[in-house]
Amino acid sequence: MLNFNFQNPTHIHFGVGQIEAISKEIPLNARVLVVYGGGSIKSNGVYQQVIDALGKHTWFEFSGIEPNPTYDTLMKAQDIIKAESIDYLLAVGGGSVIDGAKFIAAAALYEGNGEENDPWDILAKQKTFTKALPIGAVLTLPATGSESNGNAVVTRYGNKRPFKSPLVRPLFAVLDPSVTLSLSDRQISNGVVDAFIHTIEQYLTYSVNGKVQDRFSEGLLQTLIEEGPKALLPATKENLDVRSNIMWSATMALNGLIGAGVPQDWSTHMIGHELTGAFGIDHARTLSIVLPAVMKVRKEQKREKLLQYATRVWQITEGDDDARIDQAIRLTEEFFEKMQVPTRLSDVDLDSKDIDLLIERLQQNGLTALGEQGDITLEISREILTLAL
Amino acid sequence: MLNFNFQNPTHIHFGVGQIEAISKEIPLNARVLVVYGGGSIKSNGVYQQVIDALGKHTWFEFSGIEPNPTYDTLMKAQDIIKAESIDYLLAVGGGSVIDGAKFIAAAALYEGNGEENDPWDILAKQKTFTKALPIGAVLTLPATGSESNGNAVVTRYGNKRPFKSPLVRPLFAVLDPSVTLSLSDRQISNGVVDAFIHTIEQYLTYSVNGKVQDRFSEGLLQTLIEEGPKALLPATKENLDVRSNIMWSATMALNGLIGAGVPQDWSTHMIGHELTGAFGIDHARTLSIVLPAVMKVRKEQKREKLLQYATRVWQITEGDDDARIDQAIRLTEEFFEKMQVPTRLSDVDLDSKDIDLLIERLQQNGLTALGEQGDITLEISREILTLAL
Repeated sequence: MLNFNFQNPTHIHFGVGQIEAISKEIPLNARVLVVYGGGSIKSNGVYQQVIDALGKHTWFEFSGIEPNPTYDTLMKAQDIIKAESIDYLLAVGGGSVIDGAKFIAAAALYEGNGEENDPWDILAKQKTFTKALPIGAVLTLPATGSESNGNAVVTRYGNKRPFKSPLVRPLFAVLDPSVTLSLSDRQISNGVVDAFIHTIEQYLTYSVNGKVQDRFSEGLLQTLIEEGPKALLPATKENLDVRSNIMWSATMALNGLIGAGVPQDWSTHMIGHELTGAFGIDHARTLSIVLPAVMKVRKEQKREKLLQYATRVWQITEGDDDARIDQAIRLTEEFFEKMQVPTRLSDVDLDSKDIDLLIERLQQNGLTALGEQGDITLEISREILTLAL
Repeated sequence: MLNFNFQNPTHIHFGVGQIEAISKEIPLNARVLVVYGGGSIKSNGVYQQVIDALGKHTWFEFSGIEPNPTYDTLMKAQDIIKAESIDYLLAVGGGSVIDGAKFIAAAALYEGNGEENDPWDILAKQKTFTKALPIGAVLTLPATGSESNGNAVVTRYGNKRPFKSPLVRPLFAVLDPSVTLSLSDRQISNGVVDAFIHTIEQYLTYSVNGKVQDRFSEGLLQTLIEEGPKALLPATKENLDVRSNIMWSATMALNGLIGAGVPQDWSTHMIGHELTGAFGIDHARTLSIVLPAVMKVRKEQKREKLLQYATRVWQITEGDDDARIDQAIRLTEEFFEKMQVPTRLSDVDLDSKDIDLLIERLQQNGLTALGEQGDITLEISREILTLAL
């Protein structure tokens, strides 16, 4: 096991009816900005529950945060923050809204290096910051884990740019599984697949004998494999246990715990980001296209863990090592198909001539040494994308 | 899954050499009281590492906290706390030292209800408190999980009394697995068994379909079953991966995570506490005696989970339900035997005439409705103890 630091102070309120917990979590003298996306929280009743809970608070709202939130949209929130002396953000939505709130929180108090204070530097130059507005979150779409981590991704000029800081980790998060019942199949699919791949990226590397981390990851993968498809089937999609298990898995998949003390390989995400940036494909659907090809191209480097994955997650016991690995990859693809997401570039109408642009973008963004060993060069990324055709 | 609240802000510093992290975790202007037990931290080098790390701090020390720490010992620390205006506690030791520090921290700032302020009320009357000194922990014995939870057990008049509060949860905990190399086999055994049973008590109840919690628990149980015996075998006992996996399992077993959203059954601990109180048997050794009998007596109530335990933790696939459950219980006992702890009252020279005293003590302490359903009456506790003879 590698040395590690781990801390996750986000207070989780899990269960039906927990939205009312925000009334006690947010100080009564706070000036709250409720940030959200489109109008879905108004039609599904979440908005009403939130404003009921804020009955004694002073609050304002900022809406219109889009999927893959953009810098330009998020910077618009600064006007109301200044005008109304906002000192607390409540993000109500999925990963995009919560990620957006994180950037708004950091930008509001950003002082830069003393000479200039352009919050764009947080994304463009990975400048650190020492203050951010406190954030609470009401999660409506289990997927990214943003509700209890300090990570965010913001888009500008067609590029997705990540930043992270413990200062933007939500102080609390409400996870009410009944809220997810109004999600579309596509949203559920994308969320389950995103959480699955977050887990894989902290698991499918090389072994450091981190038995707790491995088994926790395997437990999340098994749970998502079992429960994900049920959330799409008419007979089981309304089942709150199914929704609960998916929601808690997605949070645990990226709250820092399973990745503490083990190597990580975020190449699928990095290559996937370019697919979203260049062609506007849903984040999760880029991942389900890239991951199987990463598994195949990196079979030797990931051999030991692929075998463990085959045995423990898929219970494959027959055949030689290569056959077991191949079957595990095939079952992974079948799981994605059950989740109704693409597994090939051709499924989203891309072909070999689109690969050059993706490689160019990886190069422009300096993503030339990906993977747990930093040895996924542009050439290997090209190999991965070619195999994903 | 049941509704739940979960928050665990303890900052974990895991790995060889991490003791130096305390120099940054404790504010430089703090007046620190280092609390510890006997002299073992002086002979194994931990004490020296701690005082090296506190080189720029103002610190004092209080030693002599015994296993199953007593109220009388702990209250002696109040003198130096007052005399030196201590405002930070650093607990260096195992669960007893950290539990002791928690009581010291609460007692130091205890104001009671305004009429009297006897810290004994925290234990005797379960009085709540609103302030406690901040605590950091350097863990030397993986077992109780006390390093990242808000629970403690203190003994007075021969009775073990628990209390809990988020105010006494350590702000940070250093987990350096190399520190555990100087432990005796008996300390390692006790620690592994304690962590194993903590996990069982949050797992072996009735199913609420909490798939993440179940799989995390199963992962901890499997890890402890695999790694525990290795820590006793000459060929593997010095292996740092073994020590790391045990140490991280023990912390995760009782930091609140696996028990969030699921029913719990602490009857083994409650009955075990009386065995320690009445006969001075090591805490973990009371648990290994009581648990198999609890499993047998509560077989019907725990049937579904016992079958899951048999299948997933022990990979038992042959035989009918009863046979699989019986085999899982037998394998649990064999695991305890490998860990060199007793599984019967007769192993610690107790017999049927000692049971009356234990039942009497359970009654005196109001422990007449134990278990996940509160239906383990004194009569059933007697049945459990009788089966444990």
